[in-house]
Amino acid sequence: MKAERSLADQHRQAVLDVLHDGGRLTRNQISQRVGVTRSTVSEVLSGLRDEGAVVIADSVRMPGRGRPAEVLSLDPSAARYMGIDFAHNRVLVLVTNASGHVIATDCRAYLPDQGWGARCAIAITLAEDFARSDLLHYRFLQGIAIGLPGPNSALWDSSVVAAPLEPYQQVGARVCELFGKRFGVGVWVDHHIRFAALGEATHPNASAEGNLLYLRLSLGVGGAIVTGGLPVRGEHQLGGEAGHVIVDRSDRARDCRCGRRGCLETLASVGGVLQSCRELGLGVYTIDAAAEAVRDNHTAALEVVNDVARVVGQVLGTAAVILDPAEIVLTGEVARLSVDFTARVAKALAGEVLPSVTIPVRLAHLGDEAGALGAVASLTTAFHPAQRTKEFAMSSLSPELHGR
Amino acid sequence: MKAERSLADQHRQAVLDVLHDGGRLTRNQISQRVGVTRSTVSEVLSGLRDEGAVVIADSVRMPGRGRPAEVLSLDPSAARYMGIDFAHNRVLVLVTNASGHVIATDCRAYLPDQGWGARCAIAITLAEDFARSDLLHYRFLQGIAIGLPGPNSALWDSSVVAAPLEPYQQVGARVCELFGKRFGVGVWVDHHIRFAALGEATHPNASAEGNLLYLRLSLGVGGAIVTGGLPVRGEHQLGGEAGHVIVDRSDRARDCRCGRRGCLETLASVGGVLQSCRELGLGVYTIDAAAEAVRDNHTAALEVVNDVARVVGQVLGTAAVILDPAEIVLTGEVARLSVDFTARVAKALAGEVLPSVTIPVRLAHLGDEAGALGAVASLTTAFHPAQRTKEFAMSSLSPELHGR
Repeated sequence: MKAERSLADQHRQAVLDVLHDGGRLTRNQISQRVGVTRSTVSEVLSGLRDEGAVVIADSVRMPGRGRPAEVLSLDPSAARYMGIDFAHNRVLVLVTNASGHVIATDCRAYLPDQGWGARCAIAITLAEDFARSDLLHYRFLQGIAIGLPGPNSALWDSSVVAAPLEPYQQVGARVCELFGKRFGVGVWVDHHIRFAALGEATHPNASAEGNLLYLRLSLGVGGAIVTGGLPVRGEHQLGGEAGHVIVDRSDRARDCRCGRRGCLETLASVGGVLQSCRELGLGVYTIDAAAEAVRDNHTAALEVVNDVARVVGQVLGTAAVILDPAEIVLTGEVARLSVDFTARVAKALAGEVLPSVTIPVRLAHLGDEAGALGAVASLTTAFHPAQRTKEFAMSSLSPELHGR
Repeated sequence: MKAERSLADQHRQAVLDVLHDGGRLTRNQISQRVGVTRSTVSEVLSGLRDEGAVVIADSVRMPGRGRPAEVLSLDPSAARYMGIDFAHNRVLVLVTNASGHVIATDCRAYLPDQGWGARCAIAITLAEDFARSDLLHYRFLQGIAIGLPGPNSALWDSSVVAAPLEPYQQVGARVCELFGKRFGVGVWVDHHIRFAALGEATHPNASAEGNLLYLRLSLGVGGAIVTGGLPVRGEHQLGGEAGHVIVDRSDRARDCRCGRRGCLETLASVGGVLQSCRELGLGVYTIDAAAEAVRDNHTAALEVVNDVARVVGQVLGTAAVILDPAEIVLTGEVARLSVDFTARVAKALAGEVLPSVTIPVRLAHLGDEAGALGAVASLTTAFHPAQRTKEFAMSSLSPELHGR
């Protein structure tokens, strides 16, 4: 049973793929391109039309034949993949069709202390509103990928006073279950920085083909690694946590929120930069003020930029020797502290990697949508199905919940 | 055409898989387990029997039926995968059947200055001798994976005086072509340390499920990373080159053969250890003599072990923060310099990684066969076909060369 179903799925995928590549095709053309019989194609198309994935776009009269042949194409309003990016203060929902085009996107803010239940309800409302507009439908949805910030920083139900925080994995599982039940498809949850890195790696302008180091220098310092097109998740879901590489072993090393001292984050985060400025007598309290001091060529501000770029370059250099990425992508407020920040990091990096190797450093191409776009990418090309773990399979629900 | 062939291949693979899992089965049993019709199963089995992959092991009489049903099984002497590990001074060839069991292995030494042409000829002779013994045949060979040391250290033809060394990639391509033509199957070439790491990651006693850091402390210091079951190759085939992480930024940093100063290799290789011993007044010229001095509790020798373990632990700690492996595996003479070397490295490592995480450090389970076993693993479970790069596809030759 299982193997037969898998073959039918293969035919279905092959038909979808030629429609995706070929645009508008007759049954005969599809049959020729897929290399299966006309009757198999008709059977597959019948199923896809019932699901609303494929529509009759036109009809053409063939020479020497009586009846015009129907021309089929993908339904451009059939939502195929949903990517959701939960940040600490907002959620962004994005939907693509089978051609990979974004057909809907929306963003809504929430308070950082709002619970996960309420955050999910907001995201579901956004997604449902798309369908209400008649511009798209979910009858052919294939999967949802959701990026979560980690470690967990919110309760599930914020109205419960003094409840303990749920473990991150448990929040992920509940989010999976909630969206899986609501939309009747498999749900894939991962760290939102990992998805943002994947968004960069699959961006059309990326120079890397799936090998990059991604570092976000913001309120915290977080990172992600994509290698061979796949994000590195790690044994404890901590892959890419470069913010906690120890860079200062001196007596002046600063305490880190991880419980140790001298981590990269204590120097290269927004807070670290402001503390360094103030230690050098520059009284700035926002990263914008620090950036302004850099633009004004304030000596202390320049010294801080210099130090931060050097230490970031060293950590990325060590990581680059070990991982051999095609490029390094920086994002976050600190990466934009000076116009030459990436150039400074690249210079420090060059001293660390093998002399024969040059690894470009650039700012991220994508803005707010990086995480949601990467989430969708995780459902299509970048994550091979074999890489999908048990959580994904577990969250694939039975057909009766699918509402088809 | 292409898609149809791919479906036939799928059926074939499914039948092989149930025979692999199920041992001895009738056609009806295979049909039920694969979930395809009895006639499809018969067709697939007919092809597999022609290739010598499947044999009739027995026949059983079913209640109420006239003719006894044939029981089929995989031919245990059909070689399915070949793994070859070229080191600087010897080659090891290993062959497994479809059940994953090693059915032949042999090793032969050569001189380090012997050219690649001669080395390959030795390996081919070993492999052909297996088939001459009548214990196995190559009619069902699926692929060959070959580990090469890098960077290239030998000529192709050592009789050519003063010829320039061929680039590593070119040697790899020629090796691919030679074995591909001889055996008529796809050939996959990679760095032999990467294969050795994969051998450890797929070892039955491995605690990691495909997430490990592997470091070899020998004449050089080389390493490899396996993440999510896949080796990290990197953009320039340099993934895992931890030996060239800079660890000494002081004025006393030693020159490294990479052209820079203070790399891990200058301290943690055999030569680095011996140099450190001699700098502390301990006149040792072999790693065995250094190990003996450690056993004798010689102060200088203990100090060197201590320093090397600390610096190795720091580099692995940084790598572990970024990669989050399940375990760290050490190999090479320096890793065996003292009985407590891994414990010392683990202690240094603990100061680098997040307090909530413990990453075990152990010596390699596998000895000389690690590279060849990992090479075979790369052909089966660990490398997903999607991960196979162009080189692999290019080396898959046309059927007429296959000799079937």
